[in-house]
Amino acid sequence: MTWPDSAAVIGLGLIGGSVARALRDRGVQVSGWDRDPATLAAAAAEGVVDPLPEQLARAAASDLVMIAVPVSAALEVLARLTPHLTPESIVTDVGSTKCSIVRAAADLGIDDRFVGSHPLAGDHRSGWEASRSELFAGVRVFVTPSRNAPATVVGRVASVWTALGARPEVTDAVSHDVAMAWASHLPQALSTTLGLALADARVRPNDLGPGGRDVTRLAGSSPAMWSEILADNADHVVAALRTVSSRLGSLTAAVERGDLAELRRMFMDARRWAEDEPEGSDEG
Amino acid sequence: MTWPDSAAVIGLGLIGGSVARALRDRGVQVSGWDRDPATLAAAAAEGVVDPLPEQLARAAASDLVMIAVPVSAALEVLARLTPHLTPESIVTDVGSTKCSIVRAAADLGIDDRFVGSHPLAGDHRSGWEASRSELFAGVRVFVTPSRNAPATVVGRVASVWTALGARPEVTDAVSHDVAMAWASHLPQALSTTLGLALADARVRPNDLGPGGRDVTRLAGSSPAMWSEILADNADHVVAALRTVSSRLGSLTAAVERGDLAELRRMFMDARRWAEDEPEGSDEG
Repeated sequence: MTWPDSAAVIGLGLIGGSVARALRDRGVQVSGWDRDPATLAAAAAEGVVDPLPEQLARAAASDLVMIAVPVSAALEVLARLTPHLTPESIVTDVGSTKCSIVRAAADLGIDDRFVGSHPLAGDHRSGWEASRSELFAGVRVFVTPSRNAPATVVGRVASVWTALGARPEVTDAVSHDVAMAWASHLPQALSTTLGLALADARVRPNDLGPGGRDVTRLAGSSPAMWSEILADNADHVVAALRTVSSRLGSLTAAVERGDLAELRRMFMDARRWAEDEPEGSDEG
Repeated sequence: MTWPDSAAVIGLGLIGGSVARALRDRGVQVSGWDRDPATLAAAAAEGVVDPLPEQLARAAASDLVMIAVPVSAALEVLARLTPHLTPESIVTDVGSTKCSIVRAAADLGIDDRFVGSHPLAGDHRSGWEASRSELFAGVRVFVTPSRNAPATVVGRVASVWTALGARPEVTDAVSHDVAMAWASHLPQALSTTLGLALADARVRPNDLGPGGRDVTRLAGSSPAMWSEILADNADHVVAALRTVSSRLGSLTAAVERGDLAELRRMFMDARRWAEDEPEGSDEG
């Protein structure tokens, strides 16, 4: 394929549903599947997708197969699709972690046809009801090829995202997962941890000021999605959590001994980071 | 006094400057002082305050003395004012911690005339330039009397805040400082800690998505102000930090052993907190 004539989207939540709508709007014949029959019926009734039978064989015959289910389910869907893939099929996914699925594609012997994707298109809402054709406008999408994916296959997946209005960036799965452990999974884990600690102290969300509300905003995120992301990216997430734990220990010790100079230095280092100033600059 | 004829405001930053403007607008004769001569000159040039001589004797003769300098300086200002106070003077402050200044007022023998205040009127900006008469409209103000403050004195301080448009709530200093340790100081400390850890990993603010930016927003807060607040409220802040540290250890262990059920339970507990649902409710 250059531009796909046909696409199958497995999982019609916020991301999958939006991909299906966007491809359909651009003239692609889209078939779809969702484990929730009501979602699949809604997508079919709106004319966005043709329903796929559950065995997935027909999905595998599409030019482009987009797996848009949670991480652990994606590994299973990929395994079930593999025997039915044609040599021309290109497969991608939209998961928040990339090492495990890229490794699975290699283990399944389809690393010449699989390229991972991760669109940074979160939303406070989720599900088919929240999906929309323009969700990817201006959105960064990390594209992570398997080791043996030809450049043409990588280019085709990237060009699909470009056509949907997104900004694809090709990187390797390990670099992606390390970067996400710090920039995404760590802030999520800390916000959740703060929510748990505040619950321990019987402090309620309405007791917080605007600052506290910012820091705890992610505590309301999806348990199903986030428990899987942290477990799937465990090595890198644990390293990030240990760094925070060490920094937290130093801060606690400085508070405990009333070390104003050290506390001030820490707050200045953090503010310098927040203002994205070069290290060593030293005002106020 | 019932409504003060005269007031002295020591420290003309965001809070003190706004108090001075708001009182002046309501017909009070306001004198002021700031350690920065340019700030004091600006406030005098705008006709908001009459400049006070540095020895503070004249300030102490006002009906209402408002101390609006950082916590450690506030203790010193209170001590220097005390010898000059008239029996009719009422003194309050605007610091984020209340135990130490309420205790200092008792030690100085002026706990019949001192009532602490803490307006929750933070702002991204600071300083005289950011001050404005309407800053306190709708703002919660904790009012924390010294042990021997007569109800009439407490009522007068509360009525000044009400006249400025704020919503005063009388509480004791210990309850205030415990509540703030959790609801304000802990989120600030965690946001700063995350900023330090991300700096360690060379992750820059622009690498974060909207969620990460929320969690790190407070990392840019004032080092001078926050190092003093944490040190002044050390006992309660350390207890809160230890609870987070314990929760963080459990989360890290669950990630490390890939315990999906436990991770999911943690995320569900945090989300239940975020949605302010009663404990024991158990959906999704």
